[in-house]
Amino acid sequence: MNHIFSYQHLREFTHEVFIRMGCSLQHAETASEVLLSADLRGVDSHGVARLSGYVRLWEAGRINARPDVHIVHETPSTAVVDGDSGLGLVVAPFAMEVALQKAAAVGSGWVSVKNSNHFGIAGYHAMMALERDMIGMAMTNASPLVAPTFAKERMLGTNPIAVAIPANEQPAFVADFATTTAANGKLEILQRKNLEAPEGWIQDKEGATSTNPHELRSGGALLPLGGDREHGSHKGYCLGAIVDIFSAVLSGANYGPWAPPFVSFLPLPPDPVGQGLGHFFGAMRVDAFRPADEFKANMDKWIGRFRAAEPVQGQQVLIPGDPEREMEKERRVQGIPLLEPVVKDLEEVAARFKIKFA
Amino acid sequence: MNHIFSYQHLREFTHEVFIRMGCSLQHAETASEVLLSADLRGVDSHGVARLSGYVRLWEAGRINARPDVHIVHETPSTAVVDGDSGLGLVVAPFAMEVALQKAAAVGSGWVSVKNSNHFGIAGYHAMMALERDMIGMAMTNASPLVAPTFAKERMLGTNPIAVAIPANEQPAFVADFATTTAANGKLEILQRKNLEAPEGWIQDKEGATSTNPHELRSGGALLPLGGDREHGSHKGYCLGAIVDIFSAVLSGANYGPWAPPFVSFLPLPPDPVGQGLGHFFGAMRVDAFRPADEFKANMDKWIGRFRAAEPVQGQQVLIPGDPEREMEKERRVQGIPLLEPVVKDLEEVAARFKIKFA
Repeated sequence: MNHIFSYQHLREFTHEVFIRMGCSLQHAETASEVLLSADLRGVDSHGVARLSGYVRLWEAGRINARPDVHIVHETPSTAVVDGDSGLGLVVAPFAMEVALQKAAAVGSGWVSVKNSNHFGIAGYHAMMALERDMIGMAMTNASPLVAPTFAKERMLGTNPIAVAIPANEQPAFVADFATTTAANGKLEILQRKNLEAPEGWIQDKEGATSTNPHELRSGGALLPLGGDREHGSHKGYCLGAIVDIFSAVLSGANYGPWAPPFVSFLPLPPDPVGQGLGHFFGAMRVDAFRPADEFKANMDKWIGRFRAAEPVQGQQVLIPGDPEREMEKERRVQGIPLLEPVVKDLEEVAARFKIKFA
Repeated sequence: MNHIFSYQHLREFTHEVFIRMGCSLQHAETASEVLLSADLRGVDSHGVARLSGYVRLWEAGRINARPDVHIVHETPSTAVVDGDSGLGLVVAPFAMEVALQKAAAVGSGWVSVKNSNHFGIAGYHAMMALERDMIGMAMTNASPLVAPTFAKERMLGTNPIAVAIPANEQPAFVADFATTTAANGKLEILQRKNLEAPEGWIQDKEGATSTNPHELRSGGALLPLGGDREHGSHKGYCLGAIVDIFSAVLSGANYGPWAPPFVSFLPLPPDPVGQGLGHFFGAMRVDAFRPADEFKANMDKWIGRFRAAEPVQGQQVLIPGDPEREMEKERRVQGIPLLEPVVKDLEEVAARFKIKFA
């Protein structure tokens, strides 16, 4: 059964939890906005459902509630940011702002981040570029759950990529996707309902294809976008690897199988190769290429033409960002539905801090 | 039956053909090097097998053998280049060089190109960054052959992405892949042999999955990486769309279904939305993020760890670029095998210019 909560209610609760963790008012404001943007956009796996996970990481001393997030190296168009073990939810907007300011000054800005934690949905950070007539990009590495093509071992995270591109009359183009066949959140839904997964999503511990959604608990792995070699999984592996290298090797974070797990009950890998988790952000001013009006008028035309592409019977061709925007419109008015276990989880968080959830 | 030719022989022949088309000595040098790099690396569909296609486009007046390739707009880290209808094989290295010089000056360089033609393999251009201790990126839009998720219509090209990342003792990481399940070249192999295609590569003109490799001739389409919605084809569609927008909307080239066809017997789409084909190039100095030695030592570690990942029985985990590098090593020594129809095609090109092929 679902329970419906207003955005405002969940936002205020989340804000209060971050304050109780010791975050500054400004950080609590930012972190709660980023976290809730996932619930609004329908990416339920990355919203308040994760709040208790952040609390447990903080309790385990792996999240610093009062981080000194700062630039450690920079050129006119690039920077490395040290997140000081802070919430990714505040480290990421800081780093994206650095990228945006560099783009304002020299046309583009590219920022690699080390020593961070889970940053919520990639799309939020990429979309920060839109109101400034810039293209925004965000990516992050994550706990190793994915086996490269031909591997048994879990070496990469679901390593998402988000790209936000402004238009004029049309809503913006916003792509935000894991570089695996299916995001881990989708698998969690099947686990909860005890349904089989389609072939091409996961493999068992020997590397054989499997439809058991619980396979990850017994040594299995998620598969890179493509699913198997014949369907291009080596391309999904390339994408996940590029995200890992841009996010963590460029910055000095932990990469590949050394990426720290999100769940606090798993130990950190021994012999770290860097600090914390890594992210990568990019911003390009569209008028660093051609006049912004001209660019945005052509984006309107691009979007209009693709939306009007002749559909397969009974279907409709979508523009990246359409479903999430529709969801946000609906949930801002009708509220955000949470599953029973998520409500229980938030009630426990509330009890932990002696506050009320509902 | 295959005929084997030395790299040097094919290189000199190609060089001579470009000279006969009226290219400058320098352009013939560059264009033949770029074209042959595909044959060396085993991407047979993009090498000398395409030479006659370039000649026919030139005969049709769609390729300018004496282009004035130039920058039309720039900021410290970005530029738009006008290819003046030149061979993409010379426009692309020019634009990549602009990106590399901007990266040398301000940390990164990003160049969008209009008014160009087919640029050979994306990997060649991205790899230009390696010897300067930079990360290189190259992408291009192309003739519309791909249907977005839920569409019947062909709206996008196979729009490849290449990313080259330097290491120290290990060979470089070089990813170079079409954003479709299978590159068009792979389909052409099945067509020639009259073999069925795996499900997930193509659809028929109604948008139903098909295994007939000739489906594109009767209104069918290639499928975005992922194959179908359940296996993440919307992500492949996002990738192809991003390549199209960065390459053509940023620069002012033709995008989506307006991208000009490579084959000269197909007419140009009416009401063009820009000029020619578009490309996008990027370069980032690794020491714009952290000391180059440190970065490259970590890339060695990344590559070593992934290559040592526990493989599925009977397999081996590869690093992007491994197969192409092995192929190049072999073909430089043993020569480049060409199929009978390709040899015939080159003999016709030779006859056209009253020169000898073999």
